[in-house]
Amino acid sequence: MPDEVEWLNQEQLESWITLAGLMFKLPGALDYQLQRDSGLTHFEYTVLAMLSDSPGRSLRMSNLAGAANGSLSRLSHVVKRLEQRGFVRRRPSEDDGRITVATLTDAGFEELAAAAPGHVATVRKFVIDALTPEQLRELKVISEQILEKVDPSKSCE
Amino acid sequence: MPDEVEWLNQEQLESWITLAGLMFKLPGALDYQLQRDSGLTHFEYTVLAMLSDSPGRSLRMSNLAGAANGSLSRLSHVVKRLEQRGFVRRRPSEDDGRITVATLTDAGFEELAAAAPGHVATVRKFVIDALTPEQLRELKVISEQILEKVDPSKSCE
Repeated sequence: MPDEVEWLNQEQLESWITLAGLMFKLPGALDYQLQRDSGLTHFEYTVLAMLSDSPGRSLRMSNLAGAANGSLSRLSHVVKRLEQRGFVRRRPSEDDGRITVATLTDAGFEELAAAAPGHVATVRKFVIDALTPEQLRELKVISEQILEKVDPSKSCE
Repeated sequence: MPDEVEWLNQEQLESWITLAGLMFKLPGALDYQLQRDSGLTHFEYTVLAMLSDSPGRSLRMSNLAGAANGSLSRLSHVVKRLEQRGFVRRRPSEDDGRITVATLTDAGFEELAAAAPGHVATVRKFVIDALTPEQLRELKVISEQILEKVDPSKSCE
């Protein structure tokens, strides 16, 4: 019943097209710098960073997926590759053998530490320096509100 | 010289992590609905939509890449696939045979028209309805400022 479609008005459409453009462009620019300088994708970097900030540099796979905003299936592929490169180790949880825990290795920590300066400089150049502190705060609120719609489970954390 | 790295402060880091999460989650959610219901990726949909809105439903490949915020090499791959499915036709420009022009076919227009209601409803659910009109306007400004840093050539348009 196409007559019932509530199309976007011009202002909504322009805002959406601009956000969509950002989603097409920014991930590729971040991946480009990281892959060129460190051989990591932005998602791989994020996984290493989330483990690094966790107690014992370890997280359950399901919590790691949540922290990195990836699906569990996508995370499994990425962690497998990181494990093959010696940056992450997976083992069954000591509390519950059905649960898998991922741990950052020393080699993984060194890889992250070596990649961080270039990545942070890129984030600063593309995002932080592009915005006023007030815009940066507003962007956090806006992104959170959209994420709650995309993945309602996140709002319970 | 790692001592010279200007790390992000806590507030900057939290804003950035939230935006990065949005970039990891939202594209997949949009692709999921479009691929399930129409067999198109969000980028393919965007390419068809940009052609549909252009005079003669045609654009030079370089202008189409700019309009869809994709690189020319990515666009070439996608347009080739769309051409194989009969949705787009490529031909040399009448003005300058070295320039390639992409045109939306009738089949491509029908594909786009069939996909549009479901896609627009998804954009409305995830983005438009998540934000106030003021936030939506602010998001456009913020996204434009970041895009100008990522791709300075865009600011000349």
